[in-house]
Amino acid sequence: MPKPLNIGMIGYGFMGRAHSNAYRKVNNFFPLEYHPVLKAVCARDAEKAKAFAETWGYESIETDWRKLLSRKDIDAVDICTPNNLHKEIALAAAAAGKIILCEKPLSMNTAEGEEMVAAVEKAGVPNIVWYNYRRVPAVTMAKQLIDEGRLGRIFHYRSVFLQDWTISTDLPQGGQGLWRLDVNAAGSGVTGDLLAHCIDTAIWLNGPIESVSAMTETFVKERTHTLTGKVEKVGIDDACAFLARFKNGSLATFESTRYARGHKALYTFEINGEKASINWDLHDLHRLNYFDHKDESKLRAWRSIHVTDHGGEHPYMDKWWVPGLQIGYEHSFVHQVADFLDGLAKGTPVSPTFRDALETQKVCDAVLKSAREGTWEKVG
Amino acid sequence: MPKPLNIGMIGYGFMGRAHSNAYRKVNNFFPLEYHPVLKAVCARDAEKAKAFAETWGYESIETDWRKLLSRKDIDAVDICTPNNLHKEIALAAAAAGKIILCEKPLSMNTAEGEEMVAAVEKAGVPNIVWYNYRRVPAVTMAKQLIDEGRLGRIFHYRSVFLQDWTISTDLPQGGQGLWRLDVNAAGSGVTGDLLAHCIDTAIWLNGPIESVSAMTETFVKERTHTLTGKVEKVGIDDACAFLARFKNGSLATFESTRYARGHKALYTFEINGEKASINWDLHDLHRLNYFDHKDESKLRAWRSIHVTDHGGEHPYMDKWWVPGLQIGYEHSFVHQVADFLDGLAKGTPVSPTFRDALETQKVCDAVLKSAREGTWEKVG
Amino acid sequence: MPKPLNIGMIGYGFMGRAHSNAYRKVNNFFPLEYHPVLKAVCARDAEKAKAFAETWGYESIETDWRKLLSRKDIDAVDICTPNNLHKEIALAAAAAGKIILCEKPLSMNTAEGEEMVAAVEKAGVPNIVWYNYRRVPAVTMAKQLIDEGRLGRIFHYRSVFLQDWTISTDLPQGGQGLWRLDVNAAGSGVTGDLLAHCIDTAIWLNGPIESVSAMTETFVKERTHTLTGKVEKVGIDDACAFLARFKNGSLATFESTRYARGHKALYTFEINGEKASINWDLHDLHRLNYFDHKDESKLRAWRSIHVTDHGGEHPYMDKWWVPGLQIGYEHSFVHQVADFLDGLAKGTPVSPTFRDALETQKVCDAVLKSAREGTWEKVG
Amino acid sequence: MPKPLNIGMIGYGFMGRAHSNAYRKVNNFFPLEYHPVLKAVCARDAEKAKAFAETWGYESIETDWRKLLSRKDIDAVDICTPNNLHKEIALAAAAAGKIILCEKPLSMNTAEGEEMVAAVEKAGVPNIVWYNYRRVPAVTMAKQLIDEGRLGRIFHYRSVFLQDWTISTDLPQGGQGLWRLDVNAAGSGVTGDLLAHCIDTAIWLNGPIESVSAMTETFVKERTHTLTGKVEKVGIDDACAFLARFKNGSLATFESTRYARGHKALYTFEINGEKASINWDLHDLHRLNYFDHKDESKLRAWRSIHVTDHGGEHPYMDKWWVPGLQIGYEHSFVHQVADFLDGLAKGTPVSPTFRDALETQKVCDAVLKSAREGTWEKVG
Repeated sequence: MPKPLNIGMIGYGFMGRAHSNAYRKVNNFFPLEYHPVLKAVCARDAEKAKAFAETWGYESIETDWRKLLSRKDIDAVDICTPNNLHKEIALAAAAAGKIILCEKPLSMNTAEGEEMVAAVEKAGVPNIVWYNYRRVPAVTMAKQLIDEGRLGRIFHYRSVFLQDWTISTDLPQGGQGLWRLDVNAAGSGVTGDLLAHCIDTAIWLNGPIESVSAMTETFVKERTHTLTGKVEKVGIDDACAFLARFKNGSLATFESTRYARGHKALYTFEINGEKASINWDLHDLHRLNYFDHKDESKLRAWRSIHVTDHGGEHPYMDKWWVPGLQIGYEHSFVHQVADFLDGLAKGTPVSPTFRDALETQKVCDAVLKSAREGTWEKVG
Repeated sequence: MPKPLNIGMIGYGFMGRAHSNAYRKVNNFFPLEYHPVLKAVCARDAEKAKAFAETWGYESIETDWRKLLSRKDIDAVDICTPNNLHKEIALAAAAAGKIILCEKPLSMNTAEGEEMVAAVEKAGVPNIVWYNYRRVPAVTMAKQLIDEGRLGRIFHYRSVFLQDWTISTDLPQGGQGLWRLDVNAAGSGVTGDLLAHCIDTAIWLNGPIESVSAMTETFVKERTHTLTGKVEKVGIDDACAFLARFKNGSLATFESTRYARGHKALYTFEINGEKASINWDLHDLHRLNYFDHKDESKLRAWRSIHVTDHGGEHPYMDKWWVPGLQIGYEHSFVHQVADFLDGLAKGTPVSPTFRDALETQKVCDAVLKSAREGTWEKVG
Repeated sequence: MPKPLNIGMIGYGFMGRAHSNAYRKVNNFFPLEYHPVLKAVCARDAEKAKAFAETWGYESIETDWRKLLSRKDIDAVDICTPNNLHKEIALAAAAAGKIILCEKPLSMNTAEGEEMVAAVEKAGVPNIVWYNYRRVPAVTMAKQLIDEGRLGRIFHYRSVFLQDWTISTDLPQGGQGLWRLDVNAAGSGVTGDLLAHCIDTAIWLNGPIESVSAMTETFVKERTHTLTGKVEKVGIDDACAFLARFKNGSLATFESTRYARGHKALYTFEINGEKASINWDLHDLHRLNYFDHKDESKLRAWRSIHVTDHGGEHPYMDKWWVPGLQIGYEHSFVHQVADFLDGLAKGTPVSPTFRDALETQKVCDAVLKSAREGTWEKVG
Repeated sequence: MPKPLNIGMIGYGFMGRAHSNAYRKVNNFFPLEYHPVLKAVCARDAEKAKAFAETWGYESIETDWRKLLSRKDIDAVDICTPNNLHKEIALAAAAAGKIILCEKPLSMNTAEGEEMVAAVEKAGVPNIVWYNYRRVPAVTMAKQLIDEGRLGRIFHYRSVFLQDWTISTDLPQGGQGLWRLDVNAAGSGVTGDLLAHCIDTAIWLNGPIESVSAMTETFVKERTHTLTGKVEKVGIDDACAFLARFKNGSLATFESTRYARGHKALYTFEINGEKASINWDLHDLHRLNYFDHKDESKLRAWRSIHVTDHGGEHPYMDKWWVPGLQIGYEHSFVHQVADFLDGLAKGTPVSPTFRDALETQKVCDAVLKSAREGTWEKVG
């Protein structure tokens, strides 16, 4: 008998859709004890909440998140609001004893993040942050190959997340999908939005980052704000690049921008070890590139592994279709829900917990400080 | 108010899952008048039917498809059985006035297909065949580019569908997933299973095929049959290649095999026109390659279009995520359901109807005859 | 002490340049007993011959090839004329006891080719045909991998040679670089010009071809002839595709055209064996793609081998630069000269000899006959 | 009448071969007033000099470079020695009034470079540095596209040069090909050897670099020295990465290493402008990737331009073969010689002159200082 897990979703934007889809699909493909039930969606605008609830099959709506948290029939809260609300909601949810699933980045900064970690750990509520890219099968497989020791000593890590959607100076800041350009709602620009993904994956694959030297730039200095209607200073970083040293002695470069003409969501990473190297690219997320020095020398080459083979060897893929048939972006969320529900059944935390995500927050803070001051900064 | 469309699914294998997923998802992403309701699934084995119904949320089960067809609460029947049952079920379903969605290939041969077309047209029931690849966004876009006249006069078409899953001589024929190796259940081997896809897309993109010269081969002559337990002659074609001439004067090569080591589902097509060329590959289904001679000569090149841009320009993609974030194999079925439901609301047939799919059947018959007799054969 | 080998070149077009470059470079990179000396170039037009001789360092010119053949100081004759002159010159050169290097295709047809083979074998003169693609390092390596038994039983072979340079109806036939469009000079169109390369490589890699079914087309029926100034019927095949069965039981498709918009010289081949598969593409000639089923299953994938590694493992590459630095088209000719000179020193024939090249001629004849008559044709 | 230009080459290693090949080939492909004559090669070891002279056709040898410089029959000196000899030889050559072609990097550091620039400018001798990658046709074409204003305002530049040949701890330093690991001969490690290429191209394409923040690492701390036979400290940088700001306001990341398993010579650059982006990769040097935002939105995509089209549009390519047939690494040197000889005939300097190359030296010095001190450094 499947156990229901009653979900209360706060927010209904892009991520609200991605998470809802995951909740609805997960039991069709993964055998699990828990079964998410879409109990309520919460948004300030009742009309929008209602429309979203109808589209996705939520049983009810709320317009005040505090009200949602007070409901007995809600087991788990999914925080999909802009970043500036994460802390307040999470603290209240923890106090209410709710399971928490929080969009990334965890918080506006390290200080907020520490409060949040303390709150969920004190309350003893299961918690996770939506760094979904860990669960793209090719990325999960990269982690497995590293953990199996196939790369040996690591020398280099490099990662970028390149987009081009804010080049136009006509694009406003603030409001709906554009809160990511408003420093008050987002906390930072590409650092918290995009580099946070790169950093989360990097720490997961390659361990702690010790120090960084960064630069940021805001190419478009002023944009109309949709809330005030006025041209206002842009407070976010449009681009950020940094050098890093990992605790394991490897060197890294990271870069993110929304001004790389031609790239829509070019999230890539590469890791070079003594014995083998791996790289991956979100634009072809179903492929993992791998080079193994122990291959016969004549045949040594980069392999483009089509990570679609079932039979249990390619992570998650035995649950989907047949070899050669690719899955997409949304499946990473399904996998996260599947793992989270599995952990819930077993009573074990599932990474990335708030505590795991706090590490990324610390790197982001060091990066932004380094960029401001022109110095190398220690992390944490 | 959404109108329910009560689905009765016959079969619960690979395609049963792909279709069920489409029915469940379509209204989350596409605004539609109709709303599929998973009313019943039918399979001879009650246990398996029950398990499938639970996983996918079917309200009831049947173990006799005739019983399913007799139910008043079923609006549409989805035929996902092996090929040798398509005709019988379809004829009965048409007689019962059911809407019919039939897996491809339509039938075991042209004669069966003609009976089926006559039946649905006489009954006046909406009907469609699951040639799902037409609705991979990159493929749909290829069709648009051709229809817009961008390619000009067509000179060449080439298409392959290459797999490697039957190379082992230990693989048996018959039973569950292996009915595709049993000529009595499948009718033919790669011709009906894989080339049928290539032919359907080709006719859709490039018009009627007039004549063919083909060869087939059965590399593994005998395999254990799972139903009899005996080693029996293999009656299917393991590989098939043919030359073709289209009505528009263009030349084509087609090839399919399950013995192309290294290829899992390498379905590709290329079309060369006077002004432009297009090619596509199922292994990276979210990309469309395009070469346009009218580009400035210095910059003329093949473009790899990442068909993920929303805003209504890349077909279907405004309904999904954001630019750069790819979808997968299963989405082609969602799109087919979306289009079919839309046609239902408007009262217009949606291609490929049984009549459309009959054209592919005629080409398959000509191909198999050509291969047997070593002659060029006219189609139809 | 290097031994001089005095070269007399007949023709000065594209291939005259490619061969001359090879003669001039070979001793800089390959340690060889023989040293080609550019003794004379022969062309009907004395001015052009003189200009060519100056550019390339030929010591003298001739305007009559019979005169060239009569010279005592010429050891080897290189036939770079249009195809319709190959036989006459080769027969005379053999009679004069000259070593012969002949451009491909060997002859206008099998009958001519047989005369040529008889002549060089009777005269006992070393001879070779310029099927240069065998000696692109990636192609040579494909041959090695096959000979080492890495592919196992072969199921499939496919090869295309696609160009797009004759789509314009304004292009004339005849004259200089355009003799390839004149059936009287060329014998056939893409069959002898392009498919001959595909067939030569195929036989080398996969053994004899037994039977074929072909189709040809002439898309542009009339073109101005540069010699007569009149619009004349085009006698060549603009496109040709054929099915084939090899003696080893494998199936093949071959196709060539000059109407594949977007492809300049897309010569590709793929060979699928029970254990492994290989493919290659002239547009990235320094790469060989390889899939090996014996790889660990999780990591099985197509590898893109950058065939630039020295140390003796990648054929010919220890003579050039360092790993990662690619060579180009012209190097295949240098390699052929190096091997030919090495064979000369050792007194052993170097493939493809006239006799080897005759096999390709037989396939071409069967292909053209099959296309004319609409039948399967045995080869030879 | 071609004018001879008598070359005296100092050094006979890898670069000696690359340059000699260029001198020998250039007049076969490019119509030029000047004609290089291989007059003398100079090396301390007479045997090796003799062997090299025989292979390449040098008329004479010298074992003392001062002797070579004193010869009246030498017009131009080509400096192919380890870096620590560049300055001394260049100063003497300038004093002797010789034309100078100097391998890159120009010098051990900025101070040396300034002396060298002063010397050649005072002597008024034509001079050039072998930053050969500028003249890979795809790279030259990138420059043209930028100069034509197609990219608009530049936001980002990124470049790496990744190799993996020094990972083994058994590899010694010093001697022949290994002087690049010896800080006394090389001055620096990857910074001067590899990043110097990246920097030269970057300045050429994107203008002056203003400031940098760098890190370096020496992964293998000690290696046997071939000259002393002892294990000695490694003084070079094995890896170097840096952030940079260009004068035009764009941001950049640069990285080089010899520890990137799987990469042999992965030199890449990418430049993102407001209107268009370009990237390139030495491993497929005949291709240029280009994205143009002004393309019709539906068809916007990265194009992989096969830079092999003749007719004067793809730089240098009208001199080689036909479209689709690629050239290789060595051709970049041929192009540099062609341009240099053309400049000589016209009396105009040809970039990169010593003065141009000094800019790269200044960036290298700032990079190494920044890495030592952990600070942002101004360039120059």
